[in-house]
Amino acid sequence: MESKSYMVHMNGNGVHTQDDVHIINMNGNVRSDKMKIRKKRWNIRASEMSKNTLNPIRAIVDGMKITPNPEKPMIALSIGDPTVFGNLPTDDKVLQAMKDAIDSHKYNGYAPSVGYQKSREVVASFYSCPEAPLEAKDVILTSGCSQAIELAINVLCNPGQNILVPCPGFSLYKTLAVSLGIDVKHYNLLPERSWEIDLRHLERLIDEKTACIIVNNPSNPCGSVYSKEHLQDVLAVASRNCIPILADEIYGDMVFPEYTFHSMAPLSRDVPILSCGGLAKRWLVPGWRMGWILIQDRNQAFGPEIREGLVRLSQRILGACTIVQGALESILNNTPQEFYHDTVSFLKSNSEICFSALSSIPGLTPVRPSGAMYLMVGIEIENFPEFENDVEFTERLVTEQSVFCLPATAFEYPNYFRIVVTVPEDMMAEACGRIREFCQEHYKPHRQDTNGLDQ
Amino acid sequence: MESKSYMVHMNGNGVHTQDDVHIINMNGNVRSDKMKIRKKRWNIRASEMSKNTLNPIRAIVDGMKITPNPEKPMIALSIGDPTVFGNLPTDDKVLQAMKDAIDSHKYNGYAPSVGYQKSREVVASFYSCPEAPLEAKDVILTSGCSQAIELAINVLCNPGQNILVPCPGFSLYKTLAVSLGIDVKHYNLLPERSWEIDLRHLERLIDEKTACIIVNNPSNPCGSVYSKEHLQDVLAVASRNCIPILADEIYGDMVFPEYTFHSMAPLSRDVPILSCGGLAKRWLVPGWRMGWILIQDRNQAFGPEIREGLVRLSQRILGACTIVQGALESILNNTPQEFYHDTVSFLKSNSEICFSALSSIPGLTPVRPSGAMYLMVGIEIENFPEFENDVEFTERLVTEQSVFCLPATAFEYPNYFRIVVTVPEDMMAEACGRIREFCQEHYKPHRQDTNGLDQ
Repeated sequence: MESKSYMVHMNGNGVHTQDDVHIINMNGNVRSDKMKIRKKRWNIRASEMSKNTLNPIRAIVDGMKITPNPEKPMIALSIGDPTVFGNLPTDDKVLQAMKDAIDSHKYNGYAPSVGYQKSREVVASFYSCPEAPLEAKDVILTSGCSQAIELAINVLCNPGQNILVPCPGFSLYKTLAVSLGIDVKHYNLLPERSWEIDLRHLERLIDEKTACIIVNNPSNPCGSVYSKEHLQDVLAVASRNCIPILADEIYGDMVFPEYTFHSMAPLSRDVPILSCGGLAKRWLVPGWRMGWILIQDRNQAFGPEIREGLVRLSQRILGACTIVQGALESILNNTPQEFYHDTVSFLKSNSEICFSALSSIPGLTPVRPSGAMYLMVGIEIENFPEFENDVEFTERLVTEQSVFCLPATAFEYPNYFRIVVTVPEDMMAEACGRIREFCQEHYKPHRQDTNGLDQ
Repeated sequence: MESKSYMVHMNGNGVHTQDDVHIINMNGNVRSDKMKIRKKRWNIRASEMSKNTLNPIRAIVDGMKITPNPEKPMIALSIGDPTVFGNLPTDDKVLQAMKDAIDSHKYNGYAPSVGYQKSREVVASFYSCPEAPLEAKDVILTSGCSQAIELAINVLCNPGQNILVPCPGFSLYKTLAVSLGIDVKHYNLLPERSWEIDLRHLERLIDEKTACIIVNNPSNPCGSVYSKEHLQDVLAVASRNCIPILADEIYGDMVFPEYTFHSMAPLSRDVPILSCGGLAKRWLVPGWRMGWILIQDRNQAFGPEIREGLVRLSQRILGACTIVQGALESILNNTPQEFYHDTVSFLKSNSEICFSALSSIPGLTPVRPSGAMYLMVGIEIENFPEFENDVEFTERLVTEQSVFCLPATAFEYPNYFRIVVTVPEDMMAEACGRIREFCQEHYKPHRQDTNGLDQ
């Protein structure tokens, strides 16, 4: 038997320090050992990765005083979940598909880590088009679009490399990248051009360590939908610089009737694209955690390596719930067109109500959206002298008017706030009225012709 | 506008190399630049993490020639999925709970990243006991037990640290750890002591970089169930060395009637434990991806830091499907006791059939299991001179007898194989008969009194 050492307290007060600990080894000898003893104390630290997993929305919201005015019922325009108010239920066929999957008894066991073959086929044929054909092997099913994005970043990037992400943009990209030791560079979106990408800025950010460009279209938080031409310009930047694209298309097809959604892949013959999507938004079931990656690799630039990498990574924790996978065929093929139409019609109508109401409020500059479920509103912060920034502005909006909008600092874009347009119509109108009242109260235009004496 | 450079091919054959590329900048000047040009070629490599995500079972099975004998129908005793043969359906109440959750329309939106409060409460009260009380805050719901184990390893360990894992043991621990840059040390289990842990070996492996000990009880692949006393001995090692435990208890309560499952947490007053579990095995729905971590922190050695770390990590991709979360209360509280009883009775009976059949086969040494759904069988490989090892043995067993068992090399334990005992009884008996025939064919006992001439 090996000699084992047990530590005893020798300083009499039950507290030991590294200097006064003595060791009794198994044969009873006492030795004093100031240098080499193991610290036999509980000293459990959370990992660096857990400490580097930062959620800016939580950090900002948790730091805000969100105490609504007790005289007004709270209206939360902050939550990117279309199911919260019950006014946007998913279609009955979607629910029936789930119950049928349960009753079939066929979907209780393990699926392959990349998803059932049949379910992958269904997704492939749903999104396949002549310019960008897809087969089952090009589809990886994931636990929500978040895992799709996580796998995509994880397979394309090493620690020390960087990714380019939109600003303003969905905070998850940065959360995931930073937790993996990957750097993030923000490229600007241009509010005056309906949030198109500043292409020159984008290209200037590319360096030899750039591993991918994330393009989010339609956009959270902007509600923007890019034209085919703009997407082609973005693809040209990627092509010139040989940088693959991660297309976050979770809001794909959620565009207002007069606009068209263009997926990126069919627009390029050479840029390799991982397109991430899922059931969450268009089918209004974000909690079900059904996402996917479409591997779009027209010129084989990803080659087998990226495919194999994705398969390997998918084996770490497996993917989506098998019941939802089993229901996928019916969900994608049998959901009536009216359901999709009704959803985007409602979103458009609510956006219009919100946009026109806010457009006429001095001090605010809403940007008209064309899809998704969001609308960004600029604050002329210099004309609201009581508030330092968007965080203070939205904080006081809760205190006085019980309306909560997410300050766009959460999207790295100060002095804007984001409105979620999925709330019921009357609530939207009421919220806009209260925002108007709030602004009228606090708007103190900073005169341009000031001589400085009245500042 | 910034000057931009575009690369053109100058060597006339469309292939450019770093030496003969010329650059035309925006004002039309041609310059030759051998040193500083960016390589404008697609050169996308999969990340190191994806390459370091290794699945030994896949690696071994994919390398095997698995071509069954066409004259005998294939019997796969290799798949750790109790749903494959349809003989072990989950309970109707479990399915009804899911349908009720769907019909309620309450569980389509996002849940908090750690799970619904109510669902966490339900799990807490299901597993709470006076010695180890649990509240909702001690429960984190995850996408299957795999994600529970992933989060637990990820929060406790940094790259360069090590974890101690059982040998033989479930390969996922190593897959996850290595992908995160965490080292793995294997501690021995002792087949002659029903796979108890070699405590001295375990303790010897601990060093200043050891971040946690993984204990899997009941065990995959062993089917062993530890006594209270043995678990206390393991806890004493952890306590002496101040190393937290990750208890993989996914097979908790799946023990044969004459045995008792002891969860580790109630047996210790000081060792902090992350206990991982889920619906997969006991409720026979592994595809549903419903797992959990129970934070067992009697003496506050984890403190707030590990809790916060788990919450942060849970926000990376969110957790379990909300429908399953919504069904959890009914699943845990309303599943009839007979269901649990019938499952373990079947597993015990099938294990007995298998154990007694294989016990009488010369050359094999099955180890009697007491729970879970597995049984390990030792091969006296020196007495099967045609085969180099367990991989060759099991490969030929498929070729000749169409019976596939997983070679225990997949669990880092050569010259054993694992049998899954969830198959229907007649199939189990048939498989054992074929294994007997196979061994009779190939068993050539190596005589101990050989003088070497007949070798």
